[in-house]
Order: sequence, then C-alpha cells, then structure tokens
Amino acid sequence: MTPQSSFARYNVRMHDPSRLQSIWESPEGSGKVSYIDQTLLPHKRVVRRLKCFEDALEAIILMRVRGAPLIGVTAAFGMALAAQDCGSRFFDRRFKKHARQMLQTRPTAVNLRAAVDYQLNALTDIARPRQTRRVLLRSARQFMNQEIRYSERIGRFGAAVLKRLYRKKRKKLNILTHCNAGILACVKWGTATAPIYRAAMEGVPLHVWVDETRPRNQGASLTAWEMKECGIEHTVIADNAGAHLMQRGEVDLVITGADRVTANGDAANKIGTLLKAIAAREYKVPFWVAFPTTTIDRTIRDGVREIPIEERPQDEVTHIRGRSGKHILSVQLTPDKTRAANPAFDVTPGRLITGYITEQGAVDASKFRAIH
Amino acid sequence: MTPQSSFARYNVRMHDPSRLQSIWESPEGSGKVSYIDQTLLPHKRVVRRLKCFEDALEAIILMRVRGAPLIGVTAAFGMALAAQDCGSRFFDRRFKKHARQMLQTRPTAVNLRAAVDYQLNALTDIARPRQTRRVLLRSARQFMNQEIRYSERIGRFGAAVLKRLYRKKRKKLNILTHCNAGILACVKWGTATAPIYRAAMEGVPLHVWVDETRPRNQGASLTAWEMKECGIEHTVIADNAGAHLMQRGEVDLVITGADRVTANGDAANKIGTLLKAIAAREYKVPFWVAFPTTTIDRTIRDGVREIPIEERPQDEVTHIRGRSGKHILSVQLTPDKTRAANPAFDVTPGRLITGYITEQGAVDASKFRAIH
Repeated sequence: MTPQSSFARYNVRMHDPSRLQSIWESPEGSGKVSYIDQTLLPHKRVVRRLKCFEDALEAIILMRVRGAPLIGVTAAFGMALAAQDCGSRFFDRRFKKHARQMLQTRPTAVNLRAAVDYQLNALTDIARPRQTRRVLLRSARQFMNQEIRYSERIGRFGAAVLKRLYRKKRKKLNILTHCNAGILACVKWGTATAPIYRAAMEGVPLHVWVDETRPRNQGASLTAWEMKECGIEHTVIADNAGAHLMQRGEVDLVITGADRVTANGDAANKIGTLLKAIAAREYKVPFWVAFPTTTIDRTIRDGVREIPIEERPQDEVTHIRGRSGKHILSVQLTPDKTRAANPAFDVTPGRLITGYITEQGAVDASKFRAIH
Repeated sequence: MTPQSSFARYNVRMHDPSRLQSIWESPEGSGKVSYIDQTLLPHKRVVRRLKCFEDALEAIILMRVRGAPLIGVTAAFGMALAAQDCGSRFFDRRFKKHARQMLQTRPTAVNLRAAVDYQLNALTDIARPRQTRRVLLRSARQFMNQEIRYSERIGRFGAAVLKRLYRKKRKKLNILTHCNAGILACVKWGTATAPIYRAAMEGVPLHVWVDETRPRNQGASLTAWEMKECGIEHTVIADNAGAHLMQRGEVDLVITGADRVTANGDAANKIGTLLKAIAAREYKVPFWVAFPTTTIDRTIRDGVREIPIEERPQDEVTHIRGRSGKHILSVQLTPDKTRAANPAFDVTPGRLITGYITEQGAVDASKFRAIH
C-alpha cells in the first residue's frame, strides 16, 4: 500500500471546498454582489445583497461579514457601489468621505485599508467620470480574485507543511485552529483552513480541534459549519481545553490566521491566539500563522505596542446568541449590570511563531523576518 | 495619609462576605440541610432541601452544588441522611453501597472521598445503632465547620500575600481568577476568593478579572454573582483574554482553587487553569493556588499522568444556558450533530505555580514540596 492510496481511502467523505464561497458577484460583471450573513450561521443560511455603499458599511459593522480578507473584499465592492452615489462635481470629496467612513468600521485588520487604497488608486486611472462605477467594480472584482488566488496558494504551500509533518508522524494529524480563518473569513479556501482543506484533498489523514472562540464563537458557529460542509473530521472544544490537549500530546500543529502582521513577524489575531501560542511553545507544538502578504503592515515594527486593539461591546461577553427550537436568540450569561471587558484581538510576538504561510510560500520565523 | 486610611476609604461599598453561605443546617442540629441551587444562578436564587441520600446524590450529579469543598460537605450530609434509609441488620452493607454510589458521582475532586471516609470513620465509633443518624449528622456538621475554618484561615494567610504585593506595587491590584473557587464552591469565604474578600475587608484596593470559564461559565454566573453580592469591583472577561491582559501589565496576580493537589504540587483544577498558568509564567505574573490541605492527595506524585480527568457531556460545549426575559433556557451554539470534547479539568504542573495557600499557611512552591 503506497501512502497515496491510504490517503485516498481516508478522506472519501470529503466534499470539494472550492464550491463554498462567502461573497460573489452573479452574474459576473453585473455589479450584483451577494454574501452569506454570518451572524445567522450555523443555524440559518441567509444570503444578502450589497446594493449600495451603506449596505457594505452595515455588513462590516454588524459583522455579517468578518475576517480580515473578507472585510477587505466587502469594502472594495462597497467603494465601487459608492460611485453611484456621487455626483461628478463633488465626486472626489464625497468618495474620500466614504473612504474615511469605511476605514473607521474596524480598526485592527489592515486589509480594510488595503482595499480602500486599492480603490482610491483605481480611481486615479479613470479618464471619463461616467465609467467610474464600472471601473471600480472591475477593480473590486480583481481585488476579490486576488484574494482567491492568495488563498489557493496558501493552501498549496500550507499543505506541503502538513504533508511533511504527516510523513514524520505517520499518524492522523490533530490540528488545532482558533477562530475562523476559513472560507467564511476570506472568499474561498480560507487562510488557516486552506492548508487543511488542501492537505485533506491530497489524502493526509487529519482531524481538527475547533476552538469555540468566545466571545463571538466564530469557531463553534463558523469553522464547525464549514468543516462540516466540506466533510472534514472535527471536534469543537472550549477555548480552555487547548493546553490540556497539548500536554497530552493530542495536538500536532496549531494553525491560525492573522489580522495584521508586522515586519518583524508579530501577529495580531483573534483574542486567545496568544494563549495558544504560549502553550504551544511550552509543549513544543509547531505554531503556524497563515495570511496573504496584504496582511503585512510594514509601517509597524513592534506589534505588541503599536497595533491598535479593538475593544468591542460588553454585551458580546455578557450575552450569547444561539438557537432554541426555531428561534435564534440572545441569552444573558452574567448577573444584571455586570461589567465586562472585550478586547477583540491580541498580539502574538514573532518569537512564539514557528512559521508563516503566505501566497509566496511557507517560511520559518527567522526567514520571514529576513524577507520582510 | 497612612496606608490604613487609604485602605478604609477604598472599599466603602463592600458587604460582609461571611453573611453568604452555600449550604447550611437550620436550625442547627435539626438535620434540615438547605443549599443554593447553583444551576439557576445568577438569574434565580433558589434554595433546595436535602431530605434524603438521593437528594445529595442528585445535587452533586446535576451540579446544583459544585466545587471540591462543597461537594465534600454535601456528600458528608448525604451520607448522614443515608443512615435513615438503612435497617440495622443490613446497615453496614447498605451504607457501604451508598458510599460507593457517592464516590462515583465526580471523579476528580479528592474532597468527595475525604468526606465519605470521614463518615465511614464516624460510623466505626457508634455504639448504639439507633444513634447512627444523629452521630453522622453531627459528624457532617463538624466536617462543614472544618471547611469554614479552613476557608477563614486561607483568607487570612492569602490576604497577607495580597497585602505584601500591594505594599510593593502601591496601586490597585488586578487579580485574575478562573472558575469559581468562591463561597459557592465552599461553604463560606471560598478558597481562591477568601484572600480577595479578606484583603478587601482590610482595605487593599483591588479589582478582579473574572474568567467566564467555559463551558459551564462558573465565573460569569457564580463568581460574578458573589463578587457583586460582596461589593467587590470586578470585570468579566472571555477566557481568551487572560494572556493579552498579562502582556499589557494589567494582571498583578492570578489565584485559583484546586480540585486535587499532589504531594509534589501538581494541581488539578477547572479546564483552562493550565493555559493561565503557562501565560502567567511567560509574563512573570505570580500564580497562586488556594485550597484546604484535605485537597492534597498523597497517594499520587505525578499529577499529569495520574489524576483522572472527568470527561463531561458534549452538550455543555454545544449548548449554553442563559436568561432570555423571564426564562432560563439552553441555546445551541454549534451546527446540529457537531461533535464536542469536554475535559472538565486540567493539571497544572507544580513548576508553574508560584505558591500555595492552605489553612496551614501561604508557602512558596519549593517549600510546599518540602513539607508534603
């Protein structure tokens, strides 16, 4: 029996992950952009349309779309849709006002700024103002397709990392992931999940520990949902369980996404990532971070001191949404009027990270710092 | 201004913690034992009676009472109540069967075994079988009062640790605690919370970071409730936030309880404790564990290998209980049929622990191992 045949036998129940997409234009070129409302997952799959700039703003603010790459793509389409709202005379001023509004929605992810800059650049190339909307839509489409290409490449480079580990361990890999750096955080494939999907497609036997990721539970609701859709074996755990599993040798690798990565390799990601990175080093579990190079912010060196951390509303901690019968509702967890703190991200210093996977390749931490 | 006067000014809103009790006999000597049903906190304060052995069994299994010391006290009263169910002839055999049943309810806490042994010992001293119930009730009362004394002493020794830290830092102390090792886990004062209450009463300015403690949320529901009842300044956080707060210097000390401590100082405690201990060492935050010496299990040396870890039902992870309007209900968080793992405890190796607070004193980790 060759390894390949055992690979193929293992993942017979897998579905093609590339059929799942978080945001799309249909038909292409029409400017009709739809997305999955992630606030209702995993209980309801509701598709919404982006009809105007404000729709995009709302989708980002209400976190119907979330995840650094998807926020960027939504913002790019939002800026294109802004074009129809702007008269030719005041166009520039209004467009820049829209750009500022868009930039204020979420402070941590750098992709949002990249998307808005991408569209502002596209704007400078426009000769005839009446083509503005069409040009910006094309530009948004390019931006989206670029994200898809990046995710595909992250999947291929990351799968090689997993295959190497599998060849060493010769047993089913247990991979822990935090939050959702998946299809639903990107457009297709995901960042942290792309190597998992690709490796599974290529037959690496694997199982994923899905951190539920309080307070917004993106792991329990989104990662679990897409792993199920793609037929990947997975188990949801409380965020508290990670070190215990590592201590018992039940985690072979941790892989997460990132919302912003500095030139020296510090990575801002969902709150709780840092705890897992510290534990992974304690138990000598490789800790990899996957993201497109657009997530790198070269203006910052010291991530811990310089990356702004979004403080989100208290009720995300004091309350939680879930399904009761046919209803999706929010229940209160704490006593009335209990104060809560809700930092949404934390910064993992580069020294705790084993390696980085981008669309340019998978590299060790030391090499990453040498390149960027 | 002397330190004492600034102490006194700080905690004017504090209420006496000793007026709160998790389980009590009223009137004393009556055998009428009541307890607060902790599954309904913080939303409803429901008091239930222990009328027979099965009531105690049920209270422990359904986790209406929880926390190592309180489980022990409930078991002690349960064994006393078992006496009325046992005819004199088969008494011994039946009693031992009850003892076995009781021991099977929760595997990790050593206090349960201590309580059952305590009652089995009391039984051997009984001359006249008709006095059995009375003698066992008296014994349970002694066991309970012993726990109260232990908690009081833990409070005094632990407060000295906090005062020493306050004298060094000269600023309001930020203390992080995980799960509920509070009044509701004991009878009065708590273990991890006893030093906090005592220090606050003695005027140390402090603020408590309350880990919500998924999956059962004992922090968000129980610790937050009793901190509020006692007027201690506190903030609930997702379990994920701890390392981020430590990295930013916002945690001066971590203090937790323990469900079982080995002779070499390994401590089993609520799942997630280990993550905080590893992070605390990373950021040089003192990590203290508070427990009565009855929690020490001298039969075990290597806690990581030998302490059995209770695997609890999956639905504690896939679902959560909370309040919606007037109703307390459970909502589903994950997709249907999602698999979850739910290890209820983890073991923190002694090398990660700064010091131990018991009713015998507060000692450094190295000294603890020398004594026990």
